Amino acid sequence: MRVGELGEFVLIERLAAILAGRPAYPAEGRIRLGIGDDAAVLEVGRDRDWVATTDTLIEGVHFRREWTSPEDLGWKALAVNVSDLGAMGAAPTAALVCIALPTGTESEWIECFYRGMADCAAVYGCPIAGGDTVRSPSAIAISVTAVGAIGRGAAVTRSGAGNGDLICVTGTLGDSAAGLALLAGGHSPEDRPEYVPLFRAHLRPAPPVGAARALARGGVSAMMDLSDGLASDLARLSEASGAGGRVFQDRLPISLLARGAAEELNLPPEEWAVRGGEDYEYLFTVAPDRFAPLPALLAQHGVTATIVGEICDANLVLVDSGGEPTVLPPPAFSHFD
Amino acid sequence: MRVGELGEFVLIERLAAILAGRPAYPAEGRIRLGIGDDAAVLEVGRDRDWVATTDTLIEGVHFRREWTSPEDLGWKALAVNVSDLGAMGAAPTAALVCIALPTGTESEWIECFYRGMADCAAVYGCPIAGGDTVRSPSAIAISVTAVGAIGRGAAVTRSGAGNGDLICVTGTLGDSAAGLALLAGGHSPEDRPEYVPLFRAHLRPAPPVGAARALARGGVSAMMDLSDGLASDLARLSEASGAGGRVFQDRLPISLLARGAAEELNLPPEEWAVRGGEDYEYLFTVAPDRFAPLPALLAQHGVTATIVGEICDANLVLVDSGGEPTVLPPPAFSHFD
Repeated sequence: MRVGELGEFVLIERLAAILAGRPAYPAEGRIRLGIGDDAAVLEVGRDRDWVATTDTLIEGVHFRREWTSPEDLGWKALAVNVSDLGAMGAAPTAALVCIALPTGTESEWIECFYRGMADCAAVYGCPIAGGDTVRSPSAIAISVTAVGAIGRGAAVTRSGAGNGDLICVTGTLGDSAAGLALLAGGHSPEDRPEYVPLFRAHLRPAPPVGAARALARGGVSAMMDLSDGLASDLARLSEASGAGGRVFQDRLPISLLARGAAEELNLPPEEWAVRGGEDYEYLFTVAPDRFAPLPALLAQHGVTATIVGEICDANLVLVDSGGEPTVLPPPAFSHFD
Repeated sequence: MRVGELGEFVLIERLAAILAGRPAYPAEGRIRLGIGDDAAVLEVGRDRDWVATTDTLIEGVHFRREWTSPEDLGWKALAVNVSDLGAMGAAPTAALVCIALPTGTESEWIECFYRGMADCAAVYGCPIAGGDTVRSPSAIAISVTAVGAIGRGAAVTRSGAGNGDLICVTGTLGDSAAGLALLAGGHSPEDRPEYVPLFRAHLRPAPPVGAARALARGGVSAMMDLSDGLASDLARLSEASGAGGRVFQDRLPISLLARGAAEELNLPPEEWAVRGGEDYEYLFTVAPDRFAPLPALLAQHGVTATIVGEICDANLVLVDSGGEPTVLPPPAFSHFD
């Protein structure tokens, strides 16, 4: 046997490139902003930057089929990615969906999952442009990638907060955690219809992407979406900006519904607002003299904003209702805990 | 308790949009080409189209840790996506990586996985711009999304093949299947170094992306990458183009190494070339009068091309060495078989 001249010849250029460790194919465009923000920003072509983000949801880790309907899961899997695009000030263009399904998953479940995702796609103008469906040996795994666009150099990052900037959040905090606590307590939207907005905040989050884009145009200095909870997320923003800050617990916007649920469950609603996570609202900072026009801008999107603190040179602290500061730790959230 | 006016007010605009089922947020750009090709093509900005593709690899379904080193897996997870960008004629810009890992995965494994991926990123000019790392209850799951760019309207699809076009493939077919058969037979690159190119074709595929881009510029009528095997993939291209065709088994480019391995394992190498899959070469069609310049164009990339058949109005058939035609079935490959 002669040893594969043809195969070797064909591979030569590629192997040479691999061995030399240099790009054989020059990249098209460049990364303006890479790992570490809500989304990556890519500079391609002359006029627009591309923004791309991806998130994975794993059954048993991020969701349970007993608590989440397939429609809600489909909605949420896309919504959390659209939320990240909004955090950069970008508008969605399209999404790609990878889903790994155990053998035996009912086609009805899949159909409902796609229906929920399609609802979300329609609302946010982020149609599904492709994806991959594969078999999973056990749990359902869903990875969604959303891509969007923004004017060249206009993406808002986590790193722009400056000394004296106001720390603000959109909407209310803790509704999603309240909804989760109600579900964990055995309640459901059917038996507690008065709590539907809380269940909905957890199961079918609706990030105010239009409001986030307005904030980006309105000159906010830093922005990110609230996915892991204010304490973790603000610590990330603060670290990225190389700044500290003060947040006042009394100023956190907590809905009356969440306060009601907290009273009923005998839990502190502030804990939900500070550490509950999955709010899918926006955390942003803005110079004090640029804040005034923002509420009217947000009102056009049916969204409120609340000043909850300010950026300063000292440690990042949460000030409780007695005026006592607690240092917010650096982000300790780990998916492997 | 008063029922959550604030929460409800904040959500009103978004709920109204959901209930009305219409986009609250107009999309940025539009989908030029959606589900069903190697990659999606998005039209954003004035000058470039974006190309985006995603693929998922699941442990136990797509790879086994006993057979695949983490370096090779990292390489392959990115390479198969870069391959899809090439199939559209696009150049890579960046990739996003979602990886779900069981608790207890050795950090060394992860490190090596990323090193292999970084090698591939460097060779193809497709740096990793972001991603998501989560916990998995059991198997490793990897979803990679690659984005690239191409001139407005210049993407090559599967659907452009016309009557009389030549059916061609780059490189050789069946090397990857030969490598897999050797692994399944208990062989390894260490004990059979003469077969390294075959093991490598399976474990560390190097799609000739530069060659594919040259083909796109050279005016091929349709193109896709060979991932599931010539029979399945050509049936897809043929279906997308609404055409039939004839492929001649005697013309399939099979490397001497693969023929040697087939002889040793007493297996027919043509079966690897037709149905083996994971070749990560390119299948393309081109009008006969546009073929002549292509070999020289490809030679600049160290790549060969072979005419294996022609598009025609009749059924899609594979003609064996005795001249006997077999109808190639419509794509029957299912990840759930």
